[in-house]
Amino acid sequence: MGCNILPGLCGYITKLGIGQDAYVITNQAIKKRFGQRLSNALKKGGITLKFKLIPDTEKSKSLEVASSIIKDITLYDKKRRVFILAFGGGVVGDLAGFIASIYKRGIPYVQVPTTLLAQVDSSIGGKTAVDLRQGKNLVGAFYQPHLVFTDISLLKTLSPRQIRAGLVEVIKYGLIKDKRLFAYLEKRYLDILSLKDAPLKFVVTSCIKIKAGIVARDEREEKGIRTILNFGHTIGHAIEAAGGFRRYNHGEAVALGMLVEGAISHKLNLINERTCLRIENIIEKAGLPTNIKGVSLNKILKAHYLDKKFTGKENRFALINAIGRAKVVKNVPLKVIRKSLKERLIGG
Amino acid sequence: MGCNILPGLCGYITKLGIGQDAYVITNQAIKKRFGQRLSNALKKGGITLKFKLIPDTEKSKSLEVASSIIKDITLYDKKRRVFILAFGGGVVGDLAGFIASIYKRGIPYVQVPTTLLAQVDSSIGGKTAVDLRQGKNLVGAFYQPHLVFTDISLLKTLSPRQIRAGLVEVIKYGLIKDKRLFAYLEKRYLDILSLKDAPLKFVVTSCIKIKAGIVARDEREEKGIRTILNFGHTIGHAIEAAGGFRRYNHGEAVALGMLVEGAISHKLNLINERTCLRIENIIEKAGLPTNIKGVSLNKILKAHYLDKKFTGKENRFALINAIGRAKVVKNVPLKVIRKSLKERLIGG
Repeated sequence: MGCNILPGLCGYITKLGIGQDAYVITNQAIKKRFGQRLSNALKKGGITLKFKLIPDTEKSKSLEVASSIIKDITLYDKKRRVFILAFGGGVVGDLAGFIASIYKRGIPYVQVPTTLLAQVDSSIGGKTAVDLRQGKNLVGAFYQPHLVFTDISLLKTLSPRQIRAGLVEVIKYGLIKDKRLFAYLEKRYLDILSLKDAPLKFVVTSCIKIKAGIVARDEREEKGIRTILNFGHTIGHAIEAAGGFRRYNHGEAVALGMLVEGAISHKLNLINERTCLRIENIIEKAGLPTNIKGVSLNKILKAHYLDKKFTGKENRFALINAIGRAKVVKNVPLKVIRKSLKERLIGG
Repeated sequence: MGCNILPGLCGYITKLGIGQDAYVITNQAIKKRFGQRLSNALKKGGITLKFKLIPDTEKSKSLEVASSIIKDITLYDKKRRVFILAFGGGVVGDLAGFIASIYKRGIPYVQVPTTLLAQVDSSIGGKTAVDLRQGKNLVGAFYQPHLVFTDISLLKTLSPRQIRAGLVEVIKYGLIKDKRLFAYLEKRYLDILSLKDAPLKFVVTSCIKIKAGIVARDEREEKGIRTILNFGHTIGHAIEAAGGFRRYNHGEAVALGMLVEGAISHKLNLINERTCLRIENIIEKAGLPTNIKGVSLNKILKAHYLDKKFTGKENRFALINAIGRAKVVKNVPLKVIRKSLKERLIGG
């Protein structure tokens, strides 16, 4: 992790014995902006590369796209020393990781995340997936990259909306695990939004450490530890799905989800009203929505009950009992969920 | 593992907490013969089941079939307690295991193998895969079943050719790991071919123990231990591929592969001629081919160099240096491979 470190990528790949032929999965915009720099960085160390462009939409995360890319890889993989390099945001990372996990029962892959969201969240932890029409991320694998190489200089061309989508997860890490990070965000949110090097580096490093630490203790989400990363995501996913994945993007939906799950935490006497206000304030300052518009309560509740993590009759929420401390709670009464949602709903 | 133990399956599934809704992947013939027995066995313990029939050919092992089955599973998986039950031979097991490995990043699966080959080999070890047009087993995962439930009474309706296909692997286990098993086969091969309970049980148990022991020490084939299971398979796969997967089935090709790789072992002074003769004798007694017909030397060599395990310029063989003792040898001279193949070739 660093700033302007891309030229050093090749050294890591060689030292770790990852491979000689890079199959780079990326999109048109990233390749245009950074393709040449990546190419120079790899060729310097004798690594060949081939770019594979995929459309920059969630629709690229399908079994059909994965299958067609794998067939393309077999043509490139003549010398049996290929590895995959995910060069992009969450869509590229999830798809590339999934392909790496199933081609020849697993070949090495490298994550070079280019969005704030991917740098602080999706590039770390080994969750790979594609979507089905029946649901997002329904097909996938737990499969760790051999290397996550994070260069914050790649973030410089992001749009404010893309930065905010990543900032949501940064706020989440503060809320579930690091009250100092949260306090830092309250003071320095403008520096983050304007991508100032030093604060950005501090924030990204903090998040990587938190996520890697949690994942290392519960890689496959079997011990209820990794579960705390879901704070804001249970209701967030339901809002995203209820809006047909168009009304709100992932970051916006999770911001709303954190507000609702913060309210649930409050109603269950885990946090006081002042803490709720601090959550609302930082989300507002980050330029994220604080009210749910254009999506009905019933649709959100229905989507919630279809969530793939919902097992049987028991719901399960990652809540917080202080800023920086998360707690997994089962069987939250529907009444509490409904009431917390209603408070944020406008015209639902 | 046992004889006529199918009625007890449900107890294991319940005790291991594997799931409540069985999605049974099988083929028409198996369902007709044993479907009712399986259904009774599961329903007794309150497990619901749905049968999914796939054509009994290697063509079912495709990404397209896997994808369509996964979509079908989402419709069945309403209560989030589904598991997969592979009820068949190698094709069913490989496909079902692969599906289990990627649906929701892995759900439990159970192997109930119904061929001798699947019982002694493919159901154990967690190698799952589908084929691409570019090569067999090119897409897959290492993913262990929660339970391998082996009932030798399910073998009673196998054709002699199917039994021989399994016997090949039994012979291989003797050659690489267990000289007593090999000597037993030399005496009792007729009892195995006619599926007599006690000898069959002894042989299947021995093989399961050998394979499970090897896999436990090198699950992902990273330490060169699991590699010894490839004895006969390196050349065997090449013969199978060179014959377009029609001229010889897997078992027949592996039998020929063991003869050729036995000859290679001999030429490298690892075993003497008497040992070569013992290998040839048992393969002949098992009713398996001892000569390669209708496939050219060049085609076999070409297929060999395309093998997915062939990395760079270095070949790697699992050979034997005594009956019951295997050894991995790198860089076997092409001259030795060619000569050993030629000795078995008729009209090539």
